[in-house]
Order: sequence, then C-alpha cells, then structure tokens
Amino acid sequence: MSIANLNWVGDAIDRLRNKKPLVHNITNFVVMNTTANALLALGASPIMSHGVEDLDDLVPAADAIVINIGTIDEEFAYSMLKAVQLAKIYKKPVVLDPVGAGATRFRTRVALTLLESGGISVVKGNFGEILGLLGEFGKTRGVDAASYDRNVASEAVLQASKKFNCVVGLTGYTDFVSNGSNVYEVRLKVGSQSLENVIHRVTGLGCIVSALIGAFLAVENPLKAAIAGLATFKAVSYKASEEAVYPGSFHVKLYDWLYRIDGDIIRNVVEVREIETG
Amino acid sequence: MSIANLNWVGDAIDRLRNKKPLVHNITNFVVMNTTANALLALGASPIMSHGVEDLDDLVPAADAIVINIGTIDEEFAYSMLKAVQLAKIYKKPVVLDPVGAGATRFRTRVALTLLESGGISVVKGNFGEILGLLGEFGKTRGVDAASYDRNVASEAVLQASKKFNCVVGLTGYTDFVSNGSNVYEVRLKVGSQSLENVIHRVTGLGCIVSALIGAFLAVENPLKAAIAGLATFKAVSYKASEEAVYPGSFHVKLYDWLYRIDGDIIRNVVEVREIETG
Amino acid sequence: MSIANLNWVGDAIDRLRNKKPLVHNITNFVVMNTTANALLALGASPIMSHGVEDLDDLVPAADAIVINIGTIDEEFAYSMLKAVQLAKIYKKPVVLDPVGAGATRFRTRVALTLLESGGISVVKGNFGEILGLLGEFGKTRGVDAASYDRNVASEAVLQASKKFNCVVGLTGYTDFVSNGSNVYEVRLKVGSQSLENVIHRVTGLGCIVSALIGAFLAVENPLKAAIAGLATFKAVSYKASEEAVYPGSFHVKLYDWLYRIDGDIIRNVVEVREIETG
Repeated sequence: MSIANLNWVGDAIDRLRNKKPLVHNITNFVVMNTTANALLALGASPIMSHGVEDLDDLVPAADAIVINIGTIDEEFAYSMLKAVQLAKIYKKPVVLDPVGAGATRFRTRVALTLLESGGISVVKGNFGEILGLLGEFGKTRGVDAASYDRNVASEAVLQASKKFNCVVGLTGYTDFVSNGSNVYEVRLKVGSQSLENVIHRVTGLGCIVSALIGAFLAVENPLKAAIAGLATFKAVSYKASEEAVYPGSFHVKLYDWLYRIDGDIIRNVVEVREIETG
Repeated sequence: MSIANLNWVGDAIDRLRNKKPLVHNITNFVVMNTTANALLALGASPIMSHGVEDLDDLVPAADAIVINIGTIDEEFAYSMLKAVQLAKIYKKPVVLDPVGAGATRFRTRVALTLLESGGISVVKGNFGEILGLLGEFGKTRGVDAASYDRNVASEAVLQASKKFNCVVGLTGYTDFVSNGSNVYEVRLKVGSQSLENVIHRVTGLGCIVSALIGAFLAVENPLKAAIAGLATFKAVSYKASEEAVYPGSFHVKLYDWLYRIDGDIIRNVVEVREIETG
Repeated sequence: MSIANLNWVGDAIDRLRNKKPLVHNITNFVVMNTTANALLALGASPIMSHGVEDLDDLVPAADAIVINIGTIDEEFAYSMLKAVQLAKIYKKPVVLDPVGAGATRFRTRVALTLLESGGISVVKGNFGEILGLLGEFGKTRGVDAASYDRNVASEAVLQASKKFNCVVGLTGYTDFVSNGSNVYEVRLKVGSQSLENVIHRVTGLGCIVSALIGAFLAVENPLKAAIAGLATFKAVSYKASEEAVYPGSFHVKLYDWLYRIDGDIIRNVVEVREIETG
C-alpha cells in the first residue's frame, strides 16, 4: 500500500518547504507561541489571528487553516465558525483540534457545531476528545488524557470519520487515522523510554501535531496530510528525546528537530500500517 | 516544629505525582504556557480555561484552582469571580496571585473582591502586592517589585492572613508565610549570586510559584501547600542557576528541575523557620 | 556623524540597566511572553496589560509604551487607541509595531488610526507593513515578509516618516531608519549564513525589536532609540547564531545574549551608515 510505506513523506516535506504555505491559525492562548514556532521551524508561514474583522482578508489568502478550541470562549467560537464557513466558500482545507471536547459540554458543543458545518477536512484529538465527539461518555482527564484501548481507538476513528465525513486522527502511544473506509496506525518502530518519560510533561504537543497537519494540508490530501503530520511529530519527538531527557530541554529540541526533519529520518523511525476493519 | 523541618515535603511531592491532580487555571496571557509547563513538569495535570461556559463542568472536576490577575480585563474578572464562587460551593481549594495589586486601582479592586468572596485558600504575592492589598500605599514598580523590608514583610503576611482569613505567602529573597497565627520564613540555606543575577530576568516566575502552590493544594492543607510551593520553587531555581547563568538557558532548566525535584534536594537547599511574632 | 559611529550605544544600554524603565506593553498574544522576557533580559521592567481599566494608572507610571497590533481585535484596538491618547497627554514615548498592516484592511486601518493620533514616536515594521501603511499595494505574505528592494526600503522609511511625522524603522537583512530628514541603514559588518538560516524560523523576533526600541525610548530620543533597538537585536541575533544553528536553541540563546549584550559587542558586529537621499 503506497500510503503505508511512507516513501511520499519526504517529498511532501520538500514541497512544503518550497511553498512555505500560509497557515492561518485560530488557536488557544496557551500554544499560540508554541505552534507558530513549530510551523516556522518546519518551514511553513503561520499567521495567528482570531479577529473576525481579519477573516475576509485572511481566509482567501491562506493555504490552510488550523482551528483549536483550547481556551475557547464565545468570541473565539464565533470567529472559528465564521472562518470555517469562509473556508468552505473558498475551498480551503481546515484541521480542527477539539481540545477538551468530552470534558465540558461547551467544548463538545462548539466542536460539534464546527464539524457539522461541513468545512472540516481533518479532526485530530486524543482518546477522550474523539470519544467525547462520538457521544460516548468520554471522561477526558484534563486535555492530556493518554490512556486508551487500542481496539476502541481504532474503531473510534473509523466511526468518527464516517459520522463527520472527514479524516479523523487520534493521538496516543500509537496514533490512528481513518478516512471513513480505511484505518491506519502510526507508531514508532522502536519504543523509547526517554520519550515516554517526557511526552506528557510539556504542554501543547498535541496542538503542535494539529498545526503540522494544517501545514501538510497545503500540499497533500487530508488522509496523507494527517498521516504526515502524525508521523513527522512522532519522529521529531523521538529524536528530541534522544538528546534531552528532561521536559524543558526536550521542548527546545523539538523545534530544532522540526527544522532538521526529513523523509529519511521519518521512515527510519516511524511505521504506518493499515488495520483490518470488520 | 514539624512543618519547619520539611521532612513532609518529599512525601507531598510523591503524592502529587501519583495523584496527578487536575489544576484548573484562570491566569494571565503572558504565563499560560509557562505555568502549564511548570505544572506538567512537576507532575500535575493543568487545564487552562477562562470561558464562563466551561466553569460549571471544570470546577467540580478540578482538584485545585489557580487564579492569577495579570493581564486582567472585565471578562476575565467575571470568570474568576464565578470560578471562586463555584469553588466555594464545591469545596475546592483556590490560590490567588494578585499580580499588580497596589499598582493599579482596578487590579487592587479585583483582588479584594475575590478575597472577600471567602473562597480563597492561599494568596501569594510580592511585597508591593501584599502591601497593596493591605491598603498601604504600595508603590508596586511593575509586577516584579523585589525590594522589601524583612520586618515589614513578616508583619504584612500576618496582618493579611488575619484580614483575609486565609494563608498568605510573600515572595522575595526570603519568602514569608502566615496562617494568621504563625509566621514562617522560607529561604535558601546558602545564597547564590548566579541565582540573584537571573531570578528577576525571566517573566512569570512568581506565577509559577502560585501554580505550584495550586498543585500542592490538591494534596496538602493551605499552610503546607504554600510552604511546599515556595520551597520547591526556591530549590528548583537554585539548581537551575547552578547549570545556567543566563536567563534564556536558566528558564529552560527550571522545567528540567521541576521534573527532577524531590524532598532530599529541597531539604538540602532550603530551610524553613518559624518567626516569633509580637 | 555621531549617530552612525555607535559610540553612544553602550552608554544608552548602561543607562537603561540603571533606570530599569517601566515599559508598558499592549501587544499580541503570541509574543507576550517572548517580549516580556526580552525586555527583562535586556534590563527593563515590562508590564503587560491591555485592560482599559488599568490605563489611567499605568500610562502615567510608564517610562515608555509598546503597541503591537498582531492578534488585534476590537477590544484591543480600543485599548491601544486610549493608551496612545493618554500617552500624548502624559508625554510618554510610544513605539508602534503594525504587525500585518497591508495584509488585512482591518490591521491597516487600526495602524493608520493610531498613527494619525499623533502620539506615536517610532513605528517599526517590515517591508510589507511599511509599504502597506504608505497605501501602496503591499502584499504582505503573512507577517514575516522578508524580501524587499533596498532602494524602495530606503525611500519608504523617508516617505513614511514624513507622512506620519515620526521616526520609522524597517527591518530586513539590512534595516532602515528615518526621522523625516535623514535615512540610516543598520546592518551586520559580516553576514552570517547561520543567522540567515534561522532568523525567519522563530516567531516574534520583529516584535522583540519593537519592544527593545520601547525600552530605549525611556533613555534616548526616538531616532537613537530606534537605531539602538535595531542594532542591539542585530548583534544579539548574530551572537546567538554563533552558538546555536537550529531555531529552538537559537531562540533560547537570544535571551542569554540580550542579558550579555554591551556597546563593545554591538560596535564590533554592527555598522550604521547614513544614506544619501535625493
């Protein structure tokens, strides 16, 4: 299967760096700096703007849009909905990170409203968030829930991608992606204790993944963009954890490796497999 | 005195790391990333949310709440007051960082309104802020005022803890804490010129202290939580300054040491003494 | 020419560090932490506050004000305009960073409204932003447009400084500054490939420059403050890139070098020349 062998990822990164796509982010206050730096380090051109007055000019100019509902309030929710509606008109790809969906009714409702607009290309969440969107009793413990059941996760992305008619990514020790018909898992070839130690000790890493998917949406279709974003982050975090075993230093190295990452590194470190679905 | 010997601090850190308490932060824009990373590095589970629509779900789920009025505006002030009222109903401990109280009338008023709600367990400020809350002519020079008089500081925490009926912490070269009857000082056993050089050259360090106190409120009573948060930060900053003598690198090392800190390191580096009060 | 020889810059830095000027920032969410840390590392005392309720107390107390319209919305635009009006009354110097002017009509309009208030001492932008303010069809590609024509840039700062009756700085590989009669260029004596590789891969660096100009406005006239801010950042970024060739590590080193920078380093690395104007 051509998607699973990852030979195309290096080419996608090269095209991204040549294009320097304008990625418009309406994101949460905690990670605005983090995700802008991640996008710049990879090679994209982020613009961070939530003002509704800016949308008519920014959405048509953007190559892709990242919507992230962490620290959401009514003002941001309104901007996000308007941005997604404009994105649909101008045929711009949008990735949604439903941070905290399932944990609060407000966040679940905002995420579902955005998904029902029909303008979302990829939704990327953790186990609790994707389950929360599926109406199950997702008990998201904060926004960094990590524990998940592999079979449930695989089934969840398939169901969610059918329900929302878009590509769905679910992050965890292994990541899962579905386009509604196929399900893929993205994981490290060899586990890393150093990485396990620090991966949940830095904020905004899931938000970086969404931002990277946004950048890849400017040069790939939604399924490949989701896999490329997930695989790139897995490889980058693995390499960073080889150089830095504590969270502050590890965080700094993530940006260094986003700058250095290429297709060879990703294929050496990450594997993608298609999962049989019932 | 059992509190002063700090033998209990290592146990508090262990319980914190086992519990991974959900710490709900309504804080300022400057430090949202900083304090989320500090809480994660220590071992807590931060959630950053100011939306009033989220409060009914988040406050009951939280183990402790951090309120920080830096970059305050009317919208955030309203959320904070509602969060403190809910915290009182659900009996959740709250730490307040009254950033800039005494420097502007608006901030002083917001801090006093929150304190008068009766839902605050610990208030932690610098010299200017605590004096500002006491109605004295606190001339806070920015939000990082450092100069203070030791006797005035000791008296200020005692008066403030009586006035506001909660534990009060005052940070500086030496920190002071009172529960309304006893006063403690928290300080390094041996001063460090490296630390003095950089400690006022990174933003949000006082806000990190408040966030740490919030995490400890999930596993200790307010007096011990305040002392644990102050002692932990003093030890962490001391260790970081041994490895990095300039502010950018020092800042990174703070997160590394929050991850590595334990009771032995704290007791080696920090001492707590009870102060005789008149 | 005394300005061009830069012998005065070391003295300006020394006075800045002695004065620790209170620099009031109303800036964008992405760089609040970044610019507060940059100001602290250099030796200033930043206060970050956008609440209109704070302005009556903060503007009179401030030594200089930094206005930055990245992530602008109506609420922030209102605060900024009120702050600039108060600054005019209290005769406080103001630097404006018109982030994204030329890229969206809203940002262009907000920037022009602030400039027309007559309270701006220095405006500092990139090529696209300064051209956007001049009414030309500036096609700012995001907020990090880098390509510019040297002659157009030189002419643009002169025209803009005449039009807006303030000092104008334009950043790029070479920076240009004008006070309406003279034009200066600020550049590295020797180019650095390492610096070129990373300078556009970290967010908020232009915003750091504006913040530094704000700090220097507390101790110098607007023309010298603009040149000092530009020269300081050029030297700091050059030194940081000698120690770190990837963006995450480079970013950390910027703060280390802002703390270490002095007049000798700047004069060794940076040169300023007056440009003949027609």
